[in-house]
Amino acid sequence: MVETDRRRLRGEKARAGVLAHSARIASVEGLEGLTFGRLATEAGVAKGNIQVLFGDKEALQLATLESAVDLYRVAVVAPALALASPGERLRALVAGWFQFVQERSLPGGCFLTAASSEYRSRPGAIRDRVNQHRNEARERFETLAREAVAAKELPAATDPARLAFDLLAYQAIANVAASMGDAAQFTMARERSLEIVSAK
Amino acid sequence: MVETDRRRLRGEKARAGVLAHSARIASVEGLEGLTFGRLATEAGVAKGNIQVLFGDKEALQLATLESAVDLYRVAVVAPALALASPGERLRALVAGWFQFVQERSLPGGCFLTAASSEYRSRPGAIRDRVNQHRNEARERFETLAREAVAAKELPAATDPARLAFDLLAYQAIANVAASMGDAAQFTMARERSLEIVSAK
Repeated sequence: MVETDRRRLRGEKARAGVLAHSARIASVEGLEGLTFGRLATEAGVAKGNIQVLFGDKEALQLATLESAVDLYRVAVVAPALALASPGERLRALVAGWFQFVQERSLPGGCFLTAASSEYRSRPGAIRDRVNQHRNEARERFETLAREAVAAKELPAATDPARLAFDLLAYQAIANVAASMGDAAQFTMARERSLEIVSAK
Repeated sequence: MVETDRRRLRGEKARAGVLAHSARIASVEGLEGLTFGRLATEAGVAKGNIQVLFGDKEALQLATLESAVDLYRVAVVAPALALASPGERLRALVAGWFQFVQERSLPGGCFLTAASSEYRSRPGAIRDRVNQHRNEARERFETLAREAVAAKELPAATDPARLAFDLLAYQAIANVAASMGDAAQFTMARERSLEIVSAK
């Protein structure tokens, strides 16, 4: 292995270590609440090193967003999409989201849901990326719903766009309820969500 | 009028002027993004005067939250609750929320919906107050739904708690969609909301 490869690997490992901390901080404080100083203290790394690894604050925020989305993909999306039928994939995706939030896989719950509210009125690169992830998540639900209808796992009258919309609305309220300690609202969101993806 | 009354009135007028600016700033940047410096610049008032008027940052944040909620009460809640029947009151409350957000009465849309996400994982006085306002809004929906069922303006099978929950879930997704420029999702949220409060 040549020296530049070793150096790149060391850099990637250092970035991943810092991102694990930044995703946890930003899931509670928001991506706007993420500062090099705070991150340096929590990650136990010199502030200058974090600047070298990420560049400016926006680059750190964007890397943190991707890191949080990746964490969710590995924990929930990938295992759900490996299942045999579209109906099973859809139900696992819905149940997996609620489990991810309830278990505090990130202390603030669903990163994308929170960042959607935080950046809704702040145009720029972060909002654009948040929107891309939102659209991907919605299309994933819509596609699975359409496939589940074709496989007769959901009623023929199902409207895939409306089903995806309802699921995202329930996630939005559930993400607030979970952190507010409102178990009744969180449970209602999960039950309503599982109900609409399990209709016969 | 004695001198202390005049002074109190001047103080209240000055507070109201500053709060009009702070509610607009915080509706976009969040209550955490509100600083004495930023507010002084936008309101054209000396930073020291703002500190005298409000005290510390948390007092300013709490006053800003109340001011934004009051703005919504005057614009939407009071006229809706003045209507003759519970069904009309409920429908006006729902339609009024969507109009308030669509017209950008505050540049960031619904203050309470955004603050709910911002403070969900930050225990303290602001979260407690946000939660009180959330509960009031939910109870208002539930009570009106129960009264509308009794008045035969909604089907007897209506579950008031579930109806209130669905309305708040649609508001949560619509508040993001409105500022993201996602007209399709905003429209879907309004249609679904009006549908469930107009069922026969």
